[in-house]
Amino acid sequence: MNDFLNSTSTVPEFVGASKAGDTIGLVIPSVDQALLDKLHVNKQYKTLGIISDRTGAGPQIMAMDEGVKATNMDTIDVEWPRDTKGGGGHGSLIIVGGDDPADARQAVQVALDNIHRTMGDVYNSPAGHLELQFTARASNCARVGLGAVEGKAFGLICGCPSGIGLVMADKALKTAGVEPIAFSTPSHGTSFSNEGSLTITGDSGAVRQAVMAGREIGLKLLGELASSEPKNDFPSYIK
Amino acid sequence: MNDFLNSTSTVPEFVGASKAGDTIGLVIPSVDQALLDKLHVNKQYKTLGIISDRTGAGPQIMAMDEGVKATNMDTIDVEWPRDTKGGGGHGSLIIVGGDDPADARQAVQVALDNIHRTMGDVYNSPAGHLELQFTARASNCARVGLGAVEGKAFGLICGCPSGIGLVMADKALKTAGVEPIAFSTPSHGTSFSNEGSLTITGDSGAVRQAVMAGREIGLKLLGELASSEPKNDFPSYIK
Amino acid sequence: MNDFLNSTSTVPEFVGASKAGDTIGLVIPSVDQALLDKLHVNKQYKTLGIISDRTGAGPQIMAMDEGVKATNMDTIDVEWPRDTKGGGGHGSLIIVGGDDPADARQAVQVALDNIHRTMGDVYNSPAGHLELQFTARASNCARVGLGAVEGKAFGLICGCPSGIGLVMADKALKTAGVEPIAFSTPSHGTSFSNEGSLTITGDSGAVRQAVMAGREIGLKLLGELASSEPKNDFPSYIK
Repeated sequence: MNDFLNSTSTVPEFVGASKAGDTIGLVIPSVDQALLDKLHVNKQYKTLGIISDRTGAGPQIMAMDEGVKATNMDTIDVEWPRDTKGGGGHGSLIIVGGDDPADARQAVQVALDNIHRTMGDVYNSPAGHLELQFTARASNCARVGLGAVEGKAFGLICGCPSGIGLVMADKALKTAGVEPIAFSTPSHGTSFSNEGSLTITGDSGAVRQAVMAGREIGLKLLGELASSEPKNDFPSYIK
Repeated sequence: MNDFLNSTSTVPEFVGASKAGDTIGLVIPSVDQALLDKLHVNKQYKTLGIISDRTGAGPQIMAMDEGVKATNMDTIDVEWPRDTKGGGGHGSLIIVGGDDPADARQAVQVALDNIHRTMGDVYNSPAGHLELQFTARASNCARVGLGAVEGKAFGLICGCPSGIGLVMADKALKTAGVEPIAFSTPSHGTSFSNEGSLTITGDSGAVRQAVMAGREIGLKLLGELASSEPKNDFPSYIK
Repeated sequence: MNDFLNSTSTVPEFVGASKAGDTIGLVIPSVDQALLDKLHVNKQYKTLGIISDRTGAGPQIMAMDEGVKATNMDTIDVEWPRDTKGGGGHGSLIIVGGDDPADARQAVQVALDNIHRTMGDVYNSPAGHLELQFTARASNCARVGLGAVEGKAFGLICGCPSGIGLVMADKALKTAGVEPIAFSTPSHGTSFSNEGSLTITGDSGAVRQAVMAGREIGLKLLGELASSEPKNDFPSYIK
């Protein structure tokens, strides 16, 4: 189960990496000011922690949300490359800023430690994928990256191809008294990914139920399209 | 020849699916109002018909154009994910709206029934692809999705990588008295796909000739690049 | 070592092609005016030379930079499809304009002749890639495509996934007295590619040193993520 890569690196900027999503964790203790001026960050800090990956944005954002909860780091940029190595979704670039390199390293390490968990409700098939996320209390990475309300429950219901995500979203909103934050589609709110993604907030139990309702119909629809059961690589955490 | 997937689904929203492009057809009989408010549709309807796929936008749009001709459904959204599972083109999300769930289901079914035909002039090779479309009379899905003039002949001439599409477009416009609607390139009018795509209108015979002229040089150029003949998976319908 | 494809084409528009990046070179001696009106070019010419490919933008732009130096052609459009056939970077569409078809053909041929060289510092691995470029004197293709200052030294330092490019950029800027032109990330200055890319200008020796410093740390970091040494397909030219 341990897919973490060798971390006996001699490069001080390297924190760790995981085969899950081809995710790398990095730290820049004191960033060059000329580079900082060229970055599109919402606040300037000299010390940066970085999570960057090929496959997955939601899992890495929710993993870093634990990283910022555990430290004093601020999320200052979340970007969404259209990647997934031929799949229909996103990779991510997440930058957190602060004043203490040890704190940055700790935030990145906590994020890496959470990747397997937050990948638990990503379901893959040759025809597409589903992603579900849930937290009872969102922090600043979920806010910057996904529009979550800090301190409140947050859920993500996502399906690829995007039409499946649309039906999942409809089912989720009909199930429980939750409030939609946004619904993203290929041309609106994504980087042209082939996903329909609903984000929701509200009472913690209701958000969880809505996420599970979306998952249930998503698994059936993607199963119909793929002629095979969509599979998660890590154990589901939403139950 | 039958690549349609199992449709004994117990999910009422599921209409059907095809391996061609990983295309799924769905219906939402009465969409949640909070979700409808978050969608980017040009007109609000409670009943939605959906075609969503990983590979192909033109074929699915032209297939749904037959769907809307056969019913009272309106095309209210066409979106272009940058997909094709590692290829250089688009998938699609097509939403039609109306008042009658049976009508929505019928439109989606007609679209699915037409996918093999409209895939007939998609030519693939390891280096890229070509797509040609033609209709003697465009309806509202071709208008919303591709800028066609309703009731008039319409043609699409597309090549990947995009430079091939540029030469195809030049040849098509020189062949016959047709009127260009638009020429799309990676940074203009596409979702960063690697395609050059010309859309044309005019006299039906002239449009067909122009499409065929574009196809002829496209096949030669893509053949040079690929070192092998580009192949269509279904019989050509433009002749 | 010769991967150039058959050029005994009977299509007059075909100049040549290379398996490196699936790159095709084309010429339109006298473009249709209606098509020219639809193109997004910075200056109108009747004669067009075209380089179009699936994998690589920097290598093709730097190769065409030699093409325009060797001729009287002007770079009138550079576009960045989000391609690379499932990889995390770009393809390209490069259009040069002029008045003499023989000159256009010559520019395209020189570009094709330089592709192997400018691919020399592209390093691939299953997890991502690096790209480095350097010229002591940039011309109009590097200016239009990459923001280079004409007549001055120019360097490109790029890593995928993008976080690796960010650390490479930081290292490059700390190494030598160079001036940053831009830093591009998935949501800023790219077509949603998964790259962090720094462009620099300055004294020729300093630019070269900065590019090599970025390369050194990039190779280490990508090696950590990929569990294997990133490899270039052609000999490195920056030393």
